[in-house]
This record gives sequence, C-alpha cells and structure tokens, in this order.
Amino acid sequence: MRASHYFISTLKEAPSDAEVTSQKLMLRAGLIKKTAAGIYSWMPMGLKALRKVENIVREEMNRAGAIEVLMPAVQPAELWEESGRATHYGPELLRFKDRHDRDFVIGPTHEEVITDIARRDIRSYKQLPKHFYQVQTKFRDEIRPRFGVMRGREFLMKDGYSFHSSFDDLVREYHNMYATYTRIFTRIGLEFRAVAADTGSIGGTGSHEFHVIADTGEDDIAYCPDSDYAANVELAEALPISTVHGVASEALPISTVHGVASEALTKIHTPGVKTIAELAAFLNIPETQTVKAIVVESDGEVAQAVLMLLRGDHELNEIKAQNLEGIKSPLTFATPEAIAAAFGANPGSLGPVGFTGRVIMDRSVAAMSDFVIGANEDDYHYTGANTGRDFPGPEIADLRNVVAGDPSPDGKGTLALCRGIEVGHIFQLRTKYAEAMGARFLDENGREQAMEMGCYGIGVSRILGAAIEQNNDERGIIWPTAIAPFQLVICPVGWSKSDAVREAAQALYTELSEAGVDVILDDRNERPGVMFADWELIGVPHRVVIGDRGLKEGSAEYQGRRDASATAVPIAELAAFVHEKLSA
Amino acid sequence: MRASHYFISTLKEAPSDAEVTSQKLMLRAGLIKKTAAGIYSWMPMGLKALRKVENIVREEMNRAGAIEVLMPAVQPAELWEESGRATHYGPELLRFKDRHDRDFVIGPTHEEVITDIARRDIRSYKQLPKHFYQVQTKFRDEIRPRFGVMRGREFLMKDGYSFHSSFDDLVREYHNMYATYTRIFTRIGLEFRAVAADTGSIGGTGSHEFHVIADTGEDDIAYCPDSDYAANVELAEALPISTVHGVASEALPISTVHGVASEALTKIHTPGVKTIAELAAFLNIPETQTVKAIVVESDGEVAQAVLMLLRGDHELNEIKAQNLEGIKSPLTFATPEAIAAAFGANPGSLGPVGFTGRVIMDRSVAAMSDFVIGANEDDYHYTGANTGRDFPGPEIADLRNVVAGDPSPDGKGTLALCRGIEVGHIFQLRTKYAEAMGARFLDENGREQAMEMGCYGIGVSRILGAAIEQNNDERGIIWPTAIAPFQLVICPVGWSKSDAVREAAQALYTELSEAGVDVILDDRNERPGVMFADWELIGVPHRVVIGDRGLKEGSAEYQGRRDASATAVPIAELAAFVHEKLSA
Repeated sequence: MRASHYFISTLKEAPSDAEVTSQKLMLRAGLIKKTAAGIYSWMPMGLKALRKVENIVREEMNRAGAIEVLMPAVQPAELWEESGRATHYGPELLRFKDRHDRDFVIGPTHEEVITDIARRDIRSYKQLPKHFYQVQTKFRDEIRPRFGVMRGREFLMKDGYSFHSSFDDLVREYHNMYATYTRIFTRIGLEFRAVAADTGSIGGTGSHEFHVIADTGEDDIAYCPDSDYAANVELAEALPISTVHGVASEALPISTVHGVASEALTKIHTPGVKTIAELAAFLNIPETQTVKAIVVESDGEVAQAVLMLLRGDHELNEIKAQNLEGIKSPLTFATPEAIAAAFGANPGSLGPVGFTGRVIMDRSVAAMSDFVIGANEDDYHYTGANTGRDFPGPEIADLRNVVAGDPSPDGKGTLALCRGIEVGHIFQLRTKYAEAMGARFLDENGREQAMEMGCYGIGVSRILGAAIEQNNDERGIIWPTAIAPFQLVICPVGWSKSDAVREAAQALYTELSEAGVDVILDDRNERPGVMFADWELIGVPHRVVIGDRGLKEGSAEYQGRRDASATAVPIAELAAFVHEKLSA
Repeated sequence: MRASHYFISTLKEAPSDAEVTSQKLMLRAGLIKKTAAGIYSWMPMGLKALRKVENIVREEMNRAGAIEVLMPAVQPAELWEESGRATHYGPELLRFKDRHDRDFVIGPTHEEVITDIARRDIRSYKQLPKHFYQVQTKFRDEIRPRFGVMRGREFLMKDGYSFHSSFDDLVREYHNMYATYTRIFTRIGLEFRAVAADTGSIGGTGSHEFHVIADTGEDDIAYCPDSDYAANVELAEALPISTVHGVASEALPISTVHGVASEALTKIHTPGVKTIAELAAFLNIPETQTVKAIVVESDGEVAQAVLMLLRGDHELNEIKAQNLEGIKSPLTFATPEAIAAAFGANPGSLGPVGFTGRVIMDRSVAAMSDFVIGANEDDYHYTGANTGRDFPGPEIADLRNVVAGDPSPDGKGTLALCRGIEVGHIFQLRTKYAEAMGARFLDENGREQAMEMGCYGIGVSRILGAAIEQNNDERGIIWPTAIAPFQLVICPVGWSKSDAVREAAQALYTELSEAGVDVILDDRNERPGVMFADWELIGVPHRVVIGDRGLKEGSAEYQGRRDASATAVPIAELAAFVHEKLSA
C-alpha cells in the first residue's frame, strides 16, 4: 500500500473525553472515529488490525472443528421470554418494537437463537457434538460506555455455542476451547492468563476468563508464577497460613491452627482510635498484629449480627462471606443501631470477647496469638488477646482477598497479583438453555435428553484496546506484528527530490510486497519528523528509512518500534534483513 | 471438509410461507434458517457462499482503489436531522431511544456517518479524492419482508461513498465503479445488465442499477440486445414510430408524423363495449387500430380534466405522464363525476372529438390514421378517426411504456424486455449531503467548496437469492462455481463397507484439497439416492461418484450439475479431469 492512496489522519491531541491510553492512542492514530458515546467507526488502519485479529480467531476456531455461521443482530423477544433472560437481563438489553408492534431485542449474545436452531435441526445423538460460532457485531446499551473499544456499546465479538450428548463430551470441548483460546492469544502475541472465573449472569457452571495482563486492567487477578494457577481475586482461595503446602480445611481442630499465647489479656484506653492504621500507629505495632471486626447480617426472617474477624491488614472478600451458610446474600453490613445493641459499643472498638452471637474468623486470624482487638467499649481495645483462652474458638473460614505472597491454592508456590483485561470467556452452560427452550435429542437408547451446552466468547474489538494497553510508550502504540495494521513502513527522506531515494524505496517496497510482506510506503512527501511521529504513533513495528545520506554509503536504516536506535543495513542485504526481523 | 464434521440439514419440503424459488431452495438446502419475519440466520453452507460473494466484492473494490472501513449499525438520529433524511425516510427507518432517552436509528445506509467523518477529517483538495466502503449488516424495517434474503429486514450490504473536489472527478469515479461492478458480477458468474435508473429516495442525479436477469425479478427492464442500452421500463423512452432510427422530437410538425386519412369519420353504436379488448373484438379489428382515452387531473388550484390518448394495445407510463408540465404529480385520475361533466359520457366511450380541454397524444397515436376512438356518447365510438382532420392536432408526448420490438433509444436496434433483480446501484449524489452537513474543503485557490459525493451499493446477501433465481432446476440450486459453498463433492458409494472405495475417495479428497480445491467428501455413509438428492439440492456444481462397480473397471463417475448424465473417468486421470472442469 502507498500512503498517498490510503487514509492517514493523525491527531496531536486526543479528544478531551478520552480516558485511557488505548482510547487516546487509537483516536490520535486515526484508527477509530467516535460516532456517538461508545459507538465508533473503524477507519482503514484500525479495521486492518481488527481483521487480522478476526482472521486469527477464525483460523483457530476452524482448526478446532467449530463451524462458522452468522446469526442476526435483531432477535425476536419471544425467544428471550422462553429462556427466561428477558426478565433477568437489565437495561443493557436494547429492546424495541418493529412497525407491526412486535417485540425485538438487539442481541448482546445468541444463546437463544442458536438453541432455537439446534432444537429444530438436531434430533439424534448421531448429529452431536456440534459447535457453531460467528464473528458478529453486538450491541449492549452500557449505562456508561467508556475506554473506547474496550467498553463500547457496539462491538465485534466471536461467540461460539457447542451442543453435546453428554457432560463428558462438553468437558472435552471445553478443554479443546481452552487450548484453542490459548493458541489464539499466543498467536496474537499478547501476555495473557486463563483465570478461573465466576460465571456471572450468563448462567451455568464452570468457566474461565482469558485476561490480557495490563496495569490498566479493570480486573484483579491472583496467579502463581510457578504454575498455571490463576483466579479472579474474588475467587482465589486464601489458604490457612499454618497449612502452607498442606491441605486447607475448616475441619482442623482449633488448637492445631492458632498460635501460642504468651501475653495476658489487657484492656487499654485508645482514645479516638477508630481504624486499624490508627490503632497500629497508636500502639506502635504492625497491622498484622491487629484484628479487624466486621459485623454483617445473618440470613433469615430476623437478621442477627454476625461478627467477622480478619487480620488488620487483610480485606474482606464479600463474595466469600456472602456464600457462607446462614449469611445474608448479597452481603449486608449491620446498621450502627444493630451494632450498638449487640456489642454495647460502636464500630472501631468491636471484638469477640464477651460477644455471645455468631463469630466467624478468617483462617489467618486463627493462626495469630497475642493480638489486639476491640474491647466492645468505645475507645478501648484489648492487647494480648488469644483465641480459645479469651473467647470461645469460633468458626473458621476463608473470608479475605488473597494478597501477594499468599500460598498458591495449588500448592505450587506463592501468589502474585496483577491486573487484567478480560478478552475471552469460556463457559459450561450445561442444560440451562436446552431445558428452558426444549432442545432435546434421542440418545443411543432412544431416550429423550436435554442437550449439554457450552459457550465461548472472544471480544474481538476489545482485543485491540487490550493489546495497546499492554504495548505502548510515550510515542504511541507498539503493535504485536501479527495484528499490526502494517508490519513494516518504508520512509523515504526526500521522496520528491531524490531519484535515488525514490528508486531505492520503490524497489524495496516492490520486493517486499511481492514476498507477501504487509508493507506501506510513505510517499506523502512529508518531513522525516512528521513521518516518524505518525508511524510511531500508529505503532507499525518495523521501519526502514531510506535517504540520500545513507545511500551514498550504500545503506538504509532499520529501526524496530521498541529499539532505542537505528541500525545501518547495506542496501543489498536490506530485504533479507527485514525478513529476518519479521520472522523473529 | 468432511461432511460428517460439517452441518448438512436438508428438508424435503419448503416451509409453507416461502414464496419464491430461491427462498424455498435456500431453506430446503439448509443454507439459511428463518429466525423471524425477514430475519435469517446464515447456516454454515449458506455463509460459505455469502463469504465468497463478499470476498469477490472486497477484492474488486480494493483493486479499484476504494479503502475499507467499518461504520456502526447504530447511528445518532441527530446526524439524520442534519441531512434532512430523518423526516423524509419512512417507517423503514428503525428508530429507538437508548437508556438515556437519546434518539438513535439503525442505519439502512451510511451517508450521514461517512459525511460526518469526511467533514471532520478532510480539509484540503490534496486529501481528495477518497472512496471509503464497508461490508456491513443493515436493517430496514420492511412492511412486508418477503422473498427470503432478497427482501429481508436484516441484510449484508457493501456500501461505498466517494468524495471529490470536482464533478469531473466524481464522474471519473462513477465510471470506475461502473467498470468495477461489471467485473464483480462477471466474476460471480451472473447474467446481468446495468440499467439507467431513477434515483429514488436516496437523492442526487445520475445513477445506474445493476440487475441480475431472472424471470422472477420484480423490475421490468427494457434493453437492446445489440447495444449497451438498458433502462427500467418506467424510464425507457418510446420513440415516435415514424422516426425509427431517427431523432425523437415533439417539435416535429404534426403533419410529418401522423398517417394519411383514407376513411370518413363514422359514429357507430357499440352497446356494452367498455374495454379496448371488447372494442377490437366487436369490430373485428386489431387493438393497434384503436385509441385508448385516459383522463387525468391537471396541476393547479382547480384541477382540469386532461385527456391522454394511447394506442389501444399500449400502457400508460404514469411516471412519464406525471412529469409533463401542468399535470398533477403523483398522477391522479379524474373522478367519474369530473369525466361526465367534461365529456358528457362515461369511461369506455371517451375521445378527443368535440372535447375542448387539453389533449396529449402519445407519439404512437400520432403515427396512426383511420383509427377507432370513443365518441363522447355512452355506447358509441367513431371509426375512421384522423388527427387534425377530425379534431385539432394536440400536444404529442412520450406517454407509454416501451414494448418489445420498439426502437432502441440509442438508435442501435430494437428493444427487448426482461425482468431483473436489482443487486447493485451507483449514484452521483453530487453535493446534497455535503451542503446539508457542511462537508467542505479548500480548493487549489484557497476557496471553500462543498465536496462532490458518489455512493455505490451492492446487496451482498441479495446476490445469493438472485443467483439462485437465475440458476436452478427442479432438483435444486445450480451455483456458479465462483460462489458455490463447495466447488466439488466426492460421493463414495459404500463408504463404510468398501476399503477400496474409502481409500480411493480419500486419496482424491486429499489430492484436491491440497491443490486448493474447495471440496467436500460425503462420508456420512448415506445411500447414493440421499447423497445425490442432497448435493443436487444444495447445488454443488461438480460431483465425483466413486463406487466398487466403477473401481473394478478402474474408473469413477463425474457429473456436472447441469449435465444430463455422468461421464466415466479413469481413476488415474480423475484429478486432472476435475481440474480441467473447474477451470472451464
């Protein structure tokens, strides 16, 4: 491609409403144009990168045996009534009436449409398994679309749906997709992790998210650098500290878990001390020697106060807490009035000593001895508190978020934390949709059964944003070569003035084009500074500069987008040199 | 591809609501599934054909210098307010409010979105011309979606928009697109015609439609088999019969046009004769000797009756009639009361003799002599009527639809009629959108000017329906090879029983696959009758049958989809034979 025949439209400044790096850079590089909030037009260079992602996804899905289809964006609402999602899906689901006053939705996903097809067309176990996928434009009416293509309202998604005659076969395909997604993100050239995930609103059991690792990610991920273990922080198990490398269990007798008491329980005056930070500072002790008290409501008709104890430096994990038997879900904190009534004190001075209600202790607290805890009297705390001795040994549970350095739940090392951007998600839907919509088949014994289903999504357009969040510098985007709009740019210095430059640039361009390299020749006749700034902003990973000065010495300059400086390469070796860099 | 890994789902009968051949065959062949009225899911085999069309369109658009973009389906309504189309576009435009109560439309076309991009990004003549196109899913809320993918509500379209610094440059690109569309439909393998067209509601001047020729088409086309001339019947000019091969002109003196009188004007009693057919039968004369009288309303505050005269066998062309000066548009027929008041007689006996109002005569009538016409007295007609002698020479105009055998307006032969399915349309929009939306540039003299625009559409999904309407027989679809879901099917007879058959089929499959042939191996282990019926219905253009009987003689059978019988081909020559057939 020649730049003069293409459309290059870069901006010095990003629009003021752009929030994150990838959004700013995509707008500045002219890859996308905002048409409305969360709705973008893909300009030529952005679409080129998008299509490269799409093609990698398609090739790997085909290789994995999935079959491509294309379902409509507009779906009859009655299918959503059948599945039950019409009522459960919130205002993100765009609903409208057609001119005949019939209800439709613009589908954010296609479980209903594909299940409708499967129930009409699949009758026998002999037709199973089948995995249909599509690459299709979706619309979700996000309340606050943001972050450019990472949380847009209209976006491109690959969504696949598999149908099986048994759960075992669903699990087989789930592993197949796990491997396929791993290949896809590896080929694209991203640092990523597969993360055990909550299933969220889409329903079903068993799911993994695929996250691109980036500091700007919205999700907190705990992973083990020494193994494959990775989970959303919300789901990662915090093992008992005393059982590192062992098996976590709430069934262990309390005496085998907690530490050994050496101090006496002592009530001290702590005037004005409300927070753990203030308490540690006041006593000049580490936060790890303090215990945090949190009061939540129990389940049931009359809510009771339930005391949860965590080590001072730890954070309550609300998901873990609300999933405990007898605890109100979603987790509900006790009111100040209920706390005062139950403890005789206000938050900031609460503790288990003398409290007669239910107490649940995080595993880490169970390993502590001689700790500091509220005395259930305003402005007073106990030092030297010990479980069992000073108050009855309570229930022990995993109540907290993991932190860096915690033992990995798989017993293979310690956890690290990072942030991720979710770009893929695989689910075992099981028979949720098949049961609701009557997608049944006859098994080998002639018995009718509901089909087992899996579903598998990739945010095709979001990948571009995530790739940029992971790969950029102060000058602009740094594309992985596999999805760069162009692999290489040739920048001739003095295009209109020097026959030698023009001829050398054209010769290299022709040779590389004919060899299948996706190369752009910048024949816009711009100054070097303008050219370089444009291509560094756009993020083309390889650049060759051809100018009269170098040509006199028989050389041109090569510079990779991440390289600190350019390398002089003899003209005769230039094409071979470029091929080597591209295949590196 | 192996059939067992694919999805083949054929039906014996088409659903009862399928109306036209292509719709029935696509549903029976399992290429599409109906999801709602006018909304279809593309199943694997249908999508494969769709993508082949899409790829040909994309390759040729790129070759022509257009640049691909991707604009959103959902567009802010305010852009449509700016262009003025919000009020002009009817209920086909799907409008909705998002969760913040802002107005949006699901764009049936993208003039507004691309003009919005152009006005923000293009400032100088140096950036022009630019031609952006996309292949994108569109939605039009048709009041009566029908004919499957030919008039669906959701459909795939290629739409391109070009911007120019001068009208001359727009005309250059218009010709470029005319040639590009011609290449596209030629490569797809369709019989088609470019037809001069009315511009319709999209606005602007200068346009051609590209029609696939098919008896089931909705449009009537007049064309000259001896030249490039083609036009919608509504627009094709009917030349004066006496000036065949000459220049049509209403300015010719009446005496040089009409025939020579030889009979006397005679009033005859024609009891109960109301229609031209009855009149011709009653008098035992050809309809070509009769003249039809039609009364329409004039323009202006008080409508006057205007008499239009056509040869008895001709049809009034309402577009031509309403475009005449002083005629009410849209064309409005006079009420029975107005007719009785103006003529003193009822329809069926009307004529120009004695009528003092405005009379307009079709060119063909002007060439007639001694004709039969109503006498303005119920149940009476005149025979031997002659223009000028029996009533004043009236205005002469082109009032009728052309018929087969009429002279071609380009003077290069005679017209034939056919029916067509519109699959492409190119327009010169001129400055309509640029003026309305302020898309201006600075010309070479530093003056601000509105951009000239062209727009160019291809109904990508509709092409499949049109291709099938043109190419089918009682057994099913006959795909042109370039867009067939598979080019060739290998049908092994006795797949599970005969090692020899399986080995020969697999060997051929492997050899052809590796040579890049898009081949499917039917390993479903079905009976020959089932296999053949499926593949003839699906319309794969080439078939090889391998069975034990043939193998004993060292041969297999080849049959093209249009061939009446099979050809035995020695196994050793099979691959070469197939290659030859595919490249034919």
